[in-house]
Amino acid sequence: MYPQRFEDLISVLEKLPGVGNKTAQRYAFALLEKEDEEIQKAIDALSGLKQIRKCHTCGFLSDEEECSFCKDKTRNPSTIMVLAYPQDVVAIEKTGSYKGKYHVLNGLISSSKGIYPEDINIEKLLSRIDDSIKEVIIATSPTMDGEMTALYLDKVLKDKGVLVTRLAHGLPMGASLDYADDLTLIKALDNRRKIESE
Amino acid sequence: MYPQRFEDLISVLEKLPGVGNKTAQRYAFALLEKEDEEIQKAIDALSGLKQIRKCHTCGFLSDEEECSFCKDKTRNPSTIMVLAYPQDVVAIEKTGSYKGKYHVLNGLISSSKGIYPEDINIEKLLSRIDDSIKEVIIATSPTMDGEMTALYLDKVLKDKGVLVTRLAHGLPMGASLDYADDLTLIKALDNRRKIESE
Repeated sequence: MYPQRFEDLISVLEKLPGVGNKTAQRYAFALLEKEDEEIQKAIDALSGLKQIRKCHTCGFLSDEEECSFCKDKTRNPSTIMVLAYPQDVVAIEKTGSYKGKYHVLNGLISSSKGIYPEDINIEKLLSRIDDSIKEVIIATSPTMDGEMTALYLDKVLKDKGVLVTRLAHGLPMGASLDYADDLTLIKALDNRRKIESE
Repeated sequence: MYPQRFEDLISVLEKLPGVGNKTAQRYAFALLEKEDEEIQKAIDALSGLKQIRKCHTCGFLSDEEECSFCKDKTRNPSTIMVLAYPQDVVAIEKTGSYKGKYHVLNGLISSSKGIYPEDINIEKLLSRIDDSIKEVIIATSPTMDGEMTALYLDKVLKDKGVLVTRLAHGLPMGASLDYADDLTLIKALDNRRKIESE
């Protein structure tokens, strides 16, 4: 019922994850109100998408052969943190407490989805392991697929003789103990630490 | 931390209504996975936006001088339904039970937002009223601003000697009586109708 060009825009927006027809209409009307300049920015950003690829070394997003993290000479090259998705790199980076290199799997091993080790960015990770690498930190999410991937990586990396560590599991900071689920409590108890007095 | 072109896309998406940084990232990653052909469709749809304007007669969206409803000779030209937004036209049209003409105000009179009768598409409506118009149906939403606009329109249209009607207020179909709010119940009681036996 809308002009064809407007219907086209709605059907494009409808394909975004979690967006139904009503939300797509709402977005389309919001775009209609925008200045030409803003629309041009959106067009330019979409046109630029074609130039975004995966970093040849670590799998993070880049518009060049190597991403900014791999090119950065100030980062410690002897530690590699393994993450499932590019978003996870940003989450870690925001904390400001990690200064090593990254490796993005761009997926997780999943028996339910039929994703096997060869389907994700693991081979490249193994080829990065040499004598210069002191530690590989596995930082996949503590979900079923994340755990399965971590176990697999632990096995193949240990065969290469490198120190493999994982992010700690336990109570999230600021959380109320009685709201924590059983598995988290069990992990927090298992991984309890001696209080270091100064 | 992402490549600049990708950050640009996120900041464009962040400006959509109700979209925060996380959702914008999610949309951007979904777009990244799309085929070039899909992205081109999105670019074309955005480029086409500039050609969408408001129908010169009724205020609905159109990519020509007159919208498809105003051009449609099969619709009854003696009835005009007045609506607040283009989306409302689509909602009414979907029911398939109205075959007259439309008039879109593209806004509502609002004392709280400082929107006055001259700020919305009312003057054009008044200029459409002549002896050929038999009825004007006011179909603004039963909200504060919608009611205020309806009262104002009722006054100025009656001065022109045209029959003015409003959409009925009452219990929505399928709703449970004990979940209806007081105002709706009062309206439903006030507007009760004699049951017509056949």
